[in-house]
Amino acid sequence: MDLNADLGEGFGRWPLGDDEALLGIVTSANVACGFHAGDPSTMHRICGAAVERSVAIGAQVGYRDLAGFGRRRIDYDPDELRDDILYQIGALEAFCRVARGRVGYVKPHGALYNTAAVDEVQAGAVVAAVRSYDAALPLLCQPGSTLARLAAAAGLTVVGEGFADRGYRADGTLMPRSLPGAVLHDPDEVVARAVRMAVDGEVVTDGGEVVAVPVASICVHGDTPGAVELASRVRDGLAEAGLALGPFTPTG
Amino acid sequence: MDLNADLGEGFGRWPLGDDEALLGIVTSANVACGFHAGDPSTMHRICGAAVERSVAIGAQVGYRDLAGFGRRRIDYDPDELRDDILYQIGALEAFCRVARGRVGYVKPHGALYNTAAVDEVQAGAVVAAVRSYDAALPLLCQPGSTLARLAAAAGLTVVGEGFADRGYRADGTLMPRSLPGAVLHDPDEVVARAVRMAVDGEVVTDGGEVVAVPVASICVHGDTPGAVELASRVRDGLAEAGLALGPFTPTG
Amino acid sequence: MDLNADLGEGFGRWPLGDDEALLGIVTSANVACGFHAGDPSTMHRICGAAVERSVAIGAQVGYRDLAGFGRRRIDYDPDELRDDILYQIGALEAFCRVARGRVGYVKPHGALYNTAAVDEVQAGAVVAAVRSYDAALPLLCQPGSTLARLAAAAGLTVVGEGFADRGYRADGTLMPRSLPGAVLHDPDEVVARAVRMAVDGEVVTDGGEVVAVPVASICVHGDTPGAVELASRVRDGLAEAGLALGPFTPTG
Amino acid sequence: MDLNADLGEGFGRWPLGDDEALLGIVTSANVACGFHAGDPSTMHRICGAAVERSVAIGAQVGYRDLAGFGRRRIDYDPDELRDDILYQIGALEAFCRVARGRVGYVKPHGALYNTAAVDEVQAGAVVAAVRSYDAALPLLCQPGSTLARLAAAAGLTVVGEGFADRGYRADGTLMPRSLPGAVLHDPDEVVARAVRMAVDGEVVTDGGEVVAVPVASICVHGDTPGAVELASRVRDGLAEAGLALGPFTPTG
Repeated sequence: MDLNADLGEGFGRWPLGDDEALLGIVTSANVACGFHAGDPSTMHRICGAAVERSVAIGAQVGYRDLAGFGRRRIDYDPDELRDDILYQIGALEAFCRVARGRVGYVKPHGALYNTAAVDEVQAGAVVAAVRSYDAALPLLCQPGSTLARLAAAAGLTVVGEGFADRGYRADGTLMPRSLPGAVLHDPDEVVARAVRMAVDGEVVTDGGEVVAVPVASICVHGDTPGAVELASRVRDGLAEAGLALGPFTPTG
Repeated sequence: MDLNADLGEGFGRWPLGDDEALLGIVTSANVACGFHAGDPSTMHRICGAAVERSVAIGAQVGYRDLAGFGRRRIDYDPDELRDDILYQIGALEAFCRVARGRVGYVKPHGALYNTAAVDEVQAGAVVAAVRSYDAALPLLCQPGSTLARLAAAAGLTVVGEGFADRGYRADGTLMPRSLPGAVLHDPDEVVARAVRMAVDGEVVTDGGEVVAVPVASICVHGDTPGAVELASRVRDGLAEAGLALGPFTPTG
Repeated sequence: MDLNADLGEGFGRWPLGDDEALLGIVTSANVACGFHAGDPSTMHRICGAAVERSVAIGAQVGYRDLAGFGRRRIDYDPDELRDDILYQIGALEAFCRVARGRVGYVKPHGALYNTAAVDEVQAGAVVAAVRSYDAALPLLCQPGSTLARLAAAAGLTVVGEGFADRGYRADGTLMPRSLPGAVLHDPDEVVARAVRMAVDGEVVTDGGEVVAVPVASICVHGDTPGAVELASRVRDGLAEAGLALGPFTPTG
Repeated sequence: MDLNADLGEGFGRWPLGDDEALLGIVTSANVACGFHAGDPSTMHRICGAAVERSVAIGAQVGYRDLAGFGRRRIDYDPDELRDDILYQIGALEAFCRVARGRVGYVKPHGALYNTAAVDEVQAGAVVAAVRSYDAALPLLCQPGSTLARLAAAAGLTVVGEGFADRGYRADGTLMPRSLPGAVLHDPDEVVARAVRMAVDGEVVTDGGEVVAVPVASICVHGDTPGAVELASRVRDGLAEAGLALGPFTPTG
């Protein structure tokens, strides 16, 4: 089982999250690539530290929108979206190369993640980018999403991820953040859900149903107060449940 | 002998120069990488067209300064400059990879070119970027410059370039554009200077002296009226002088 | 009757359109304000030239998207959109002030124009920006659009504009550019439509119907080959039809 | 006596400093205007809060360099620098206007502050911007600097500021941060220096000399741990010394 988190999401003078702490917890780091967050020197530093700790490096690709942190949907032309993604993967690869590592996977960020989960045009652009760059490069995304479906159909390696601190609906999608119960805060509950997802591949929905979530990675966060502590507890919980933690992709 | 020019210097809605025409003339394309000019889709398109025509692809790296087109000196921290350069090389490499080509060399742009020609800090940052990315990657720059000296000392492959349409001073450096005679416009004279540089490795200065300019590439331009026609005449002139034209670096 | 066109849509090294020629033709200049196009020095220059020629200056406000020229819909938070618009109006006002002129109106650009024409959230953000900046400032937009409706309801001065070179549908909206007949190229037809719009307030749809288009301004373009010539012919046609040309807003 | 601090220096997702706390301490807020830091919604919020508390609003203008936070010298063309400054002042004015306040002064930021303190070209650009925008607008800067001199010669109102936590040299300039003693950390010493500057217009240099520093404003900081507490102590110290605290410029 893999544990992933977003890293390197500062920009220039503005830090964000505790990258150092997260590198000691996760097995895969989604490194921001400069379009919605992240700057070259941060990328350089994190790639070096990740390789040193055998943490896998993923390209956290997003819209070109620093002001919006990639959280606003943009109606891209699909070829331009594909090219923006390729550009970001390549940029990150340079720092992986310098660190004697490699870009091990791709994970869309923010509004691109959400849009590609339901929109064939943007999902297709993500798939086109990954396939043309390296058809063997895994794509980390929501199981059952449009992106997962199109990627699998294109022969890509799809790695499903689960969110231990988010409410799920009966169709296996996440509850919108605007609804009560969309974000869980009780650490014990979050850890228990992470373990159940990882061990049994299932989650209890807001309606009380048990639905299957075939995940190979659990996503944790590091940019809010208490987040690092919670991530650490999820890691411990998974380990105590007897799960071997490690990346799903080569790290070098 | 190689013939290089800047390509892909538009940005989004704004085209610049006649990339298509230049690709039929030059043997090496300095492709802008998005920091001072160039956007991902333009990079994608040009890399594809260059590989198709066996034109070598170079990373035209510059300052992060779209508004200034990379022509304003910026006092970078050297590590940040190195990282900005690595980022740009990597981004371009993605499109080369998709086109089954490769980044064949690096050429600094604008104020970075001029600054690294005289400034040890910025020259050192360029050298550090290239060396850490791929110590075998040639660096295209002004012979006799600080950058050329530091690059050679670091074991990099330095490729000297000459400017057929620019006036030279006795020390082998270019005349500042503010001086009369700094830019030559007579096509016959420009062609003759290109041939003399390429065949004999020398140029006549503004004072009338003959100085050595050890060049393996001649730089032509495509962004002013008549420039493409002039570039074409330089190419024909070099061919008529019996020089075999071709890149100095692998194209695939 | 007013004649408006987009001006100042270059950025840094990249010019776009023939601002100088358009300033001799139009009575109102929609000046790009730096978020999707336009840079401070271009704004400065155009404001000076517009005031000199008694051409009214409008804030051509758009999304923060230089790479996409403001042509990609972005799902802004409405308060952030309002603030991005306020910022742009203020920036332009500085150059108007220096030129002893004033921002005479606001016109949304590109995807913001199209989105605000149908979307209450974004239309509301535009209205909120204009109203809080100066409730007397006219808003130039499509008659019958959501933006026009909300702006009128908020007490703003709405100025309707017509497009002489675009096909209309029976509901008074423009035909999407993807349809045949969406863009008209025959100069005589374009001039005739401009005159009919201006004199009779009506246009013939693609289906042959006559629909009312209550316009106080005709929009012409300057960024394609022949566009300036066509704009000039529209101006002459309106003058020959006996219409007095002039801005709908104070110029100083 | 006035107390000023930099506010609104976050950008989008990235906060910086404790604006809310500083607004309760200072009498003048140098609000970042979006080129090196600051975004429209932050500017909007801070202008509203500043007007409410009768804190004067200054345009904290800087280079166009978000990635470098405006701390890297850029060799601008002076007209382009003037125009970038005008643009920023105007943008801030829009939010002041909405809040029924006004831009009360201009203060250059970071590398522009330092460069204009010694460089006639950039100082001239700052002066040209302020003079053409509003010749009555005060300029907050280092006493004795090139900027102060040129501004005074141009008839601008120059307001000198002092730094209570910085070491001074015998010529009245600040010690470079690289030297020991350049930044003072002892709160008692900082407060004592602030009071002496404010009351007697003098400061003790690193060499022990007493030099005159004619200041009408003391600059405090809010972006480091303990900074807000220190700013608060400086305010209290000045008040206890019997100084009436208040802005040097109208707030509405």
